[in-house]
Amino acid sequence: MTVHHPVVNPPFNIVRVSHVELGVADLERSRRFYVDTLGLIETEQVGRSLYLRGLEERNHHSFILTEMAEPVVRRFGFKVYAESDLDLIQQRFTELELPAEWTSQHAQGRTLRVRDPAGMPLEFYASMDSIERQLQNYGAYRGCHPQRIDHINCFTHDVDASYEFYAQELGFRTTEYTETDDPEPQMWAVWLHRKGNVHDIALTNGRGPRLHHAAIWVPTAMHIIHLCDLMSTTGYLDAMERGPGRHGISNAFFLYVRDPDGHRIELFTSDYLTVDPDFEPIGWKLRDAQRQTLWGHAAPRSWFEEGSCFYGAEVQNPTLEARPIVAV
Amino acid sequence: MTVHHPVVNPPFNIVRVSHVELGVADLERSRRFYVDTLGLIETEQVGRSLYLRGLEERNHHSFILTEMAEPVVRRFGFKVYAESDLDLIQQRFTELELPAEWTSQHAQGRTLRVRDPAGMPLEFYASMDSIERQLQNYGAYRGCHPQRIDHINCFTHDVDASYEFYAQELGFRTTEYTETDDPEPQMWAVWLHRKGNVHDIALTNGRGPRLHHAAIWVPTAMHIIHLCDLMSTTGYLDAMERGPGRHGISNAFFLYVRDPDGHRIELFTSDYLTVDPDFEPIGWKLRDAQRQTLWGHAAPRSWFEEGSCFYGAEVQNPTLEARPIVAV
Amino acid sequence: MTVHHPVVNPPFNIVRVSHVELGVADLERSRRFYVDTLGLIETEQVGRSLYLRGLEERNHHSFILTEMAEPVVRRFGFKVYAESDLDLIQQRFTELELPAEWTSQHAQGRTLRVRDPAGMPLEFYASMDSIERQLQNYGAYRGCHPQRIDHINCFTHDVDASYEFYAQELGFRTTEYTETDDPEPQMWAVWLHRKGNVHDIALTNGRGPRLHHAAIWVPTAMHIIHLCDLMSTTGYLDAMERGPGRHGISNAFFLYVRDPDGHRIELFTSDYLTVDPDFEPIGWKLRDAQRQTLWGHAAPRSWFEEGSCFYGAEVQNPTLEARPIVAV
Amino acid sequence: MTVHHPVVNPPFNIVRVSHVELGVADLERSRRFYVDTLGLIETEQVGRSLYLRGLEERNHHSFILTEMAEPVVRRFGFKVYAESDLDLIQQRFTELELPAEWTSQHAQGRTLRVRDPAGMPLEFYASMDSIERQLQNYGAYRGCHPQRIDHINCFTHDVDASYEFYAQELGFRTTEYTETDDPEPQMWAVWLHRKGNVHDIALTNGRGPRLHHAAIWVPTAMHIIHLCDLMSTTGYLDAMERGPGRHGISNAFFLYVRDPDGHRIELFTSDYLTVDPDFEPIGWKLRDAQRQTLWGHAAPRSWFEEGSCFYGAEVQNPTLEARPIVAV
Repeated sequence: MTVHHPVVNPPFNIVRVSHVELGVADLERSRRFYVDTLGLIETEQVGRSLYLRGLEERNHHSFILTEMAEPVVRRFGFKVYAESDLDLIQQRFTELELPAEWTSQHAQGRTLRVRDPAGMPLEFYASMDSIERQLQNYGAYRGCHPQRIDHINCFTHDVDASYEFYAQELGFRTTEYTETDDPEPQMWAVWLHRKGNVHDIALTNGRGPRLHHAAIWVPTAMHIIHLCDLMSTTGYLDAMERGPGRHGISNAFFLYVRDPDGHRIELFTSDYLTVDPDFEPIGWKLRDAQRQTLWGHAAPRSWFEEGSCFYGAEVQNPTLEARPIVAV
Repeated sequence: MTVHHPVVNPPFNIVRVSHVELGVADLERSRRFYVDTLGLIETEQVGRSLYLRGLEERNHHSFILTEMAEPVVRRFGFKVYAESDLDLIQQRFTELELPAEWTSQHAQGRTLRVRDPAGMPLEFYASMDSIERQLQNYGAYRGCHPQRIDHINCFTHDVDASYEFYAQELGFRTTEYTETDDPEPQMWAVWLHRKGNVHDIALTNGRGPRLHHAAIWVPTAMHIIHLCDLMSTTGYLDAMERGPGRHGISNAFFLYVRDPDGHRIELFTSDYLTVDPDFEPIGWKLRDAQRQTLWGHAAPRSWFEEGSCFYGAEVQNPTLEARPIVAV
Repeated sequence: MTVHHPVVNPPFNIVRVSHVELGVADLERSRRFYVDTLGLIETEQVGRSLYLRGLEERNHHSFILTEMAEPVVRRFGFKVYAESDLDLIQQRFTELELPAEWTSQHAQGRTLRVRDPAGMPLEFYASMDSIERQLQNYGAYRGCHPQRIDHINCFTHDVDASYEFYAQELGFRTTEYTETDDPEPQMWAVWLHRKGNVHDIALTNGRGPRLHHAAIWVPTAMHIIHLCDLMSTTGYLDAMERGPGRHGISNAFFLYVRDPDGHRIELFTSDYLTVDPDFEPIGWKLRDAQRQTLWGHAAPRSWFEEGSCFYGAEVQNPTLEARPIVAV
Repeated sequence: MTVHHPVVNPPFNIVRVSHVELGVADLERSRRFYVDTLGLIETEQVGRSLYLRGLEERNHHSFILTEMAEPVVRRFGFKVYAESDLDLIQQRFTELELPAEWTSQHAQGRTLRVRDPAGMPLEFYASMDSIERQLQNYGAYRGCHPQRIDHINCFTHDVDASYEFYAQELGFRTTEYTETDDPEPQMWAVWLHRKGNVHDIALTNGRGPRLHHAAIWVPTAMHIIHLCDLMSTTGYLDAMERGPGRHGISNAFFLYVRDPDGHRIELFTSDYLTVDPDFEPIGWKLRDAQRQTLWGHAAPRSWFEEGSCFYGAEVQNPTLEARPIVAV
């Protein structure tokens, strides 16, 4: 039976999810997708890496695209409140016998590279180069007017174990969750936040660890509708995997697209504020059709099964065999 | 092979599609759907008939709901420019040996009741009682802010014959059409107008004559998105049959819903102006996935097969056996 | 006292307003405004003239920008139904002893150049080169997603005379009008259409003949809001003259901007269908604050006083001295 | 010269602004405004107090309307993270010799009532009764779809002193500020947050302490446009004081309205995330026209001068005499 973890406040303070590095086969092809079509701002290209950010972001990067032999996910990163938090995190990972080493990353300050218990490659940092925001430079608006990275959703082969780690060790707070329909329900997916909306990270049952998707926050549903029109008439028709629609979970208006290397990106808007400490997590049943989409649309099989491997992380089959509703 | 009918200007002037009368089993149940949920304005109830109109409409009615033993479609009507047009239409129907008789309808002037060659019950009139419009009475706005009736879409068992009748005899102008993918393509559906946008009437291959849907024009896609949210959380989840989406044909943003008696209603917006006499019809191939939905979503089987019978009209199987793309 | 002219159907058929030619001082500067900022599509440049159109337009041009010594308005044009209509119009203008001569214009068929009684340079034509529409080429969408020319609004020194000409001689139908607040009200402005929405041409009391503005139809109010953001952060802050707002008249959501030569352009959406022959014109009083803007905002003095001269037309002071509400 | 206060983290944790109690003369009249027009949800009426909340709010109340002889502002409240925070706040206010006493409020847990140095009546609490949220009960959506209280803006006669108190003593973080245009600029207004967007509280130079406005967060600009249409046609035309528009400060799309007792309410959307600890405050000059409104519209004099008195707080003239741009 599902344990609802109480809120834990560890001695360090993770502020929010901050960035993800995706391996790509062809940087130009990816630029056309992320910059020309979605509308992310190009901060700079360094070697074979492209550093991108959203319109409101002053951080140097939230999406990094790097040409690699295999289109795996290199890392995703969290911003912490202070430099001293990094030392406390390093200490805790070491106590837990998890990999944790100092590294340097372009445009970031001191960076701690770790793996979580499922093998996901994370990093933590406190400072990043600041770049002028483009929020009031409306002449730079393109595509769906992407404002910022919102969250990362990962497949994990053991949701219970991953959930316990993020909630109990790292201090993420639960906003919504999905249980199986069994008499003794099992946790099937969970949404966790630090920054005060529905999530910074979500954990979903499946072959893992793999990236399910990275999400970009956009201002309104109309910007997502426009992106559908744009993608479907500029050669990206097959890249539109699911949506647009309204999630029951999170109430978000969404669209899922696949980038040229198959990485899944969600365009996301209209969730809600979750800063209240007495926020009570919202539970859904796995086979409630409105959980996936308030309007009753089922997701395609690919959406439940396909994901991006993480660099150096071995994928395992899930321990839980429950099946969501899948569009046939 | 398809004949593209040249524009014909008959001696009479049909202005636009004006209204439809739908048989319903329970007037209160239908009022909750059309008035409380979609947001149509109730002009008045007379006996067991409810007269409704859109926010901008000054005509007494565009939708009439009448309690009947069978939920059939009683009639749909066209407004003509002048009383004298009615006489010219009556004369032409009589020459064609089609039924055409004078009748009286609540709140309408002299009304000509006819059947088209496929057996559809139409009526023509020149004057209707005028009611104060609600366009700037924003306190009366509900649901999806329905502004006016836009068009009627009918199944016909013989698209070629029906097309010839509406284009050549009644002076409707073609805006878009769908042909089969055959080496010698057959006309599968056609969109025809009088009022200057994509259609007043569309004709679709299938068991007919039956009403495929009646469409209501709404201001923006956002109002349709809101209706999805509203219907899916107020007991109408199963009534949402298809969409929301963008049609390739007509470029319209759409949602198809089924009323409590199964009549199909389309919420429709964002097509284009078609008043130019040199407007060249836009052709689509039946199996072009973007024809149905620019974003590639296929319609469900019910959308292609189900429709409402017309009062007193015998349904026949279509002469053409072509198959559209259907969601499995 | 105001005479409400009955609908007159002349022997010729004017379909809609079609295009306007504006004199500009610097074609590159104007291209940045109309193409890069508003988002009109460039059809082609011929000599020192730039031919532009909206996203849904198949006509070769709706806005023509021509480098001239003086930034005057060269002409505006109406499309007629058939070539024979041109001859009938020529005949009628000649009977009325108004200038009417055949001319040729780039990409247009046979063109009749006339002056109306106030001296405005008009032209009529039946055929224009057809260019592929961009409505479903969403990659070409820019600025406020301008779809088509909507109407022309002109100052005239004698509204009564101009109104009588357009309504009685040319067959334009009245949708809305503004009268003075006098015991014997005078007509102050009138909105007239052929194509089935609120107007193709509006006539406003003032020093005339001058162009008050040319209007572009856009899909939704959100596209106008975005244009405000875009213009105010790309060097066009001072070019935003009035709005955004909701007109009482026409119910349209509007923004008025001034192009680099001072010509006034309205971005316009959300009026209503007016094809019904029994449409009763809607009357407003000049000093009703909600007439100008439903929300009560007064227009600036410049909006009432400034306009573009027409090529070769002498400007006269208005016969009527009534004053609208002006923002101080 | 302006001192930019460094971020201070006091030993207690204020989560966000939570609620405000407004004195009103007629509860029914206020219900028509807040519930029927703006669309707030009525939680319950207790005696002569009406407890309201936004669509996403699970807290029992965010707006309390209480019939009083004088329409003053009774209090506004902040939610803290834990009960123990209340004791720490009480201790600190006592050390500072500011009023701080325990009180009880309907539907709230232990509540600490204080006055800030300017005399504003605040309260702090950790727990409030939880009520089912209406976020996915779309049938309850009305008006502008108000989702939650966003912030409080207060006049203070001494911005420097108030700023120092909220930033240094209470741990609020600065996001934006306005300085005078002097060679040695003075702080004229400042925006401060705890919850991670632009503000929970703003402090503005003027006769104070007085409430300038309380703000409600709405989903999109379209909902604000609709409220303009709704208010201007349902008897609230004169209640629309300023906007709609885009603030330069905060980038928010806004509308300011006055409730039937003159309290100012802002409808507010589209600011940005501010959780990063290295967030650098954005500075504006008082006489930058785009500061007030990105589109250059000046606010009316009433907006700068009128406000609601706080219960039991003496109003003083401001120490700073700088003048913003005012619409004449």
